[in-house]
Amino acid sequence: MTPHKGACLSFQPRIRKGAFFDASWRYGCRAFSVYNRTYISSTFSTPLEEYWKVTEDVAIWPVMGERQVEISGPDAADFVQFLTPRDMSRCMVGQCKYALITSAEGGILCDPIVLRLADDRFWLSTSDCDLELWAKGVAVHSPMRVAIRDAGVSVIQVQGPKSPRLMANLFGDRILDLKYYWLASMEFHGHALTVSRTGWSGEFGYEIYLGNHDQGDALFDALMQAGSECNVAPGAVSQARRIESGIMSWGVDMTPSENPYEVGLDRLVDLDGTPEFIGRAALLRLEGQPLEKRLVGMSIEGAALDPNEDPWPLTRNGETSGRLTSLAYSPRLETNIALGLVAAEHAALGTELVAGTWEGSRKARVCELPFLPKRQQGDARAS
Amino acid sequence: MTPHKGACLSFQPRIRKGAFFDASWRYGCRAFSVYNRTYISSTFSTPLEEYWKVTEDVAIWPVMGERQVEISGPDAADFVQFLTPRDMSRCMVGQCKYALITSAEGGILCDPIVLRLADDRFWLSTSDCDLELWAKGVAVHSPMRVAIRDAGVSVIQVQGPKSPRLMANLFGDRILDLKYYWLASMEFHGHALTVSRTGWSGEFGYEIYLGNHDQGDALFDALMQAGSECNVAPGAVSQARRIESGIMSWGVDMTPSENPYEVGLDRLVDLDGTPEFIGRAALLRLEGQPLEKRLVGMSIEGAALDPNEDPWPLTRNGETSGRLTSLAYSPRLETNIALGLVAAEHAALGTELVAGTWEGSRKARVCELPFLPKRQQGDARAS
Repeated sequence: MTPHKGACLSFQPRIRKGAFFDASWRYGCRAFSVYNRTYISSTFSTPLEEYWKVTEDVAIWPVMGERQVEISGPDAADFVQFLTPRDMSRCMVGQCKYALITSAEGGILCDPIVLRLADDRFWLSTSDCDLELWAKGVAVHSPMRVAIRDAGVSVIQVQGPKSPRLMANLFGDRILDLKYYWLASMEFHGHALTVSRTGWSGEFGYEIYLGNHDQGDALFDALMQAGSECNVAPGAVSQARRIESGIMSWGVDMTPSENPYEVGLDRLVDLDGTPEFIGRAALLRLEGQPLEKRLVGMSIEGAALDPNEDPWPLTRNGETSGRLTSLAYSPRLETNIALGLVAAEHAALGTELVAGTWEGSRKARVCELPFLPKRQQGDARAS
Repeated sequence: MTPHKGACLSFQPRIRKGAFFDASWRYGCRAFSVYNRTYISSTFSTPLEEYWKVTEDVAIWPVMGERQVEISGPDAADFVQFLTPRDMSRCMVGQCKYALITSAEGGILCDPIVLRLADDRFWLSTSDCDLELWAKGVAVHSPMRVAIRDAGVSVIQVQGPKSPRLMANLFGDRILDLKYYWLASMEFHGHALTVSRTGWSGEFGYEIYLGNHDQGDALFDALMQAGSECNVAPGAVSQARRIESGIMSWGVDMTPSENPYEVGLDRLVDLDGTPEFIGRAALLRLEGQPLEKRLVGMSIEGAALDPNEDPWPLTRNGETSGRLTSLAYSPRLETNIALGLVAAEHAALGTELVAGTWEGSRKARVCELPFLPKRQQGDARAS
């Protein structure tokens, strides 16, 4: 087993390009994946270079594949609540909440950030899952009065300790008042756009939602210019940084086959405070049961490994324990770090497992999450 | 505007590999796209070589991303009927039907082939759309007793005039009795697998659905060996051949924004014979109205063009008419051929339009579909 190097991406009109595709290409991005039937930039330079940018300076990452499903109408709040076990009654207008979307069986269908734009208007900023189709399917028989559509915006993330300075250079100092997990409307070249203080890096950061796709090029250039004094560079999300932060990637670290308890997201399930939602009966049943598996962090012994392309087998004493789902080499910890789903009896800190890797068997040791602290919170004016 | 050549595909564990990925790589496939969060092989050699294989000999195409959504249970037949405007009461056990899945607004959410495996068990063989999520969403409030899951099979297509010979070499002469759009259970290395006489090329052909993924390598090798006397080669679907055949690609030639009438699939809508289905009210309303746009075939003047990466604008007398969706150079017609969605008043045969292409403006002329006859039907013993 060796990494599949030298594969080309065949561009096809079935797959969309986001508002920042042309600028990404122009700034040198040549490695892509596909996310929600949309190209997603994977690396502009090297993962190592991009890691240091996002941890020490600021990186701008054209996400593109992250779609915003808009749910609006008189029953929008009730409908959003019906989709998630998180108590959404505390989500104010202007606020964002990380939430799980659960199946009737209690599995995790998606883990969007919910943005409340108005009393009766929400965006569900989705992971790589057709949440629009799910929401519309659920609405087929529902008496609730909602309209569901793709909001047609394209996302670019600005992440890293110097992101507040970059954002203030572009949008003015007012943006420094934006609190963690809140959103605001800003103006760019005469058009309104939405900004939230959220992101996928574990670092201080922002997401910008551009509705006017014709401005993709200009906004990318403006971000590069506003960040010139901060050593800005275009970059993909740093997989190493997000794994250090213990941030999961839906579709691999958690899927519809995992429930919220198994991946340690109990805090996103409120069985007492919330009215009926999809998956409630299943989660009530699961709540009292011992877990079969758990998501854990692991360090993997030995020299730096190329990232896994598939989940890798994990064993203990020769018996199947689970699978390693995400892996990266952490430049600060100077070791391979990983996330994985393992049998609950092997989830205790310090447990030794064996991972099947590109380089054969490697010792894996369960360790605490996050590997390194998240740094997203705090006062932007003080940063 | 120029084609984006030299882009790499970044392999990530979030995207699945089908049962035939390893064999595809081993047989030289280096160009991929993503289809239903699964890698799909795009070219093994060159589009021209692959075109002649599928039109004159036989090609084997590891589709991989085509997923089979299994719907089973006492109300499975009623549930499948509820998802589609096609009259499914005529679908016998062992038979396949091409069907549309419509939204509440009458838009085309998907265009699967429905396989009836048993009275109470169906597969919906889906295009690039999360049909499992849609079906499960619809089931949330439904009183119908169904189980919905991904069937966990992986598809490989065997297409071309010599496909019956290859298939008989591998499975025995009994397979030659399989009629067009019927399915049968065959045996490979002691395990049952399903074969249907369907495909995406417009040529004589078969699809093989492998449940035992460990046999992917062996089945690929066995197909290559069984076809050695027929000049077999591994190949992607030939875009040129499928456009010649007038076969649409969901996600570009038709999307949820098009209804069945606009893309000429009226025959798949039965408003009289079928009980309630999703989209019925909308389609009843649309049936009597003049069409706003239509799917057409077009020939594009001038030298061979690189295939489009995005829908291209179509104009007439300087005014927007619609978009060119799929394009290829046809080696037999010796011209560029295309599909597109145009204003209904520009859909008449012979209408001249202008397409914005890589090479600037090019004359486009509306022409009959299919460009060249489909050859899938007929007696396999006579072929």
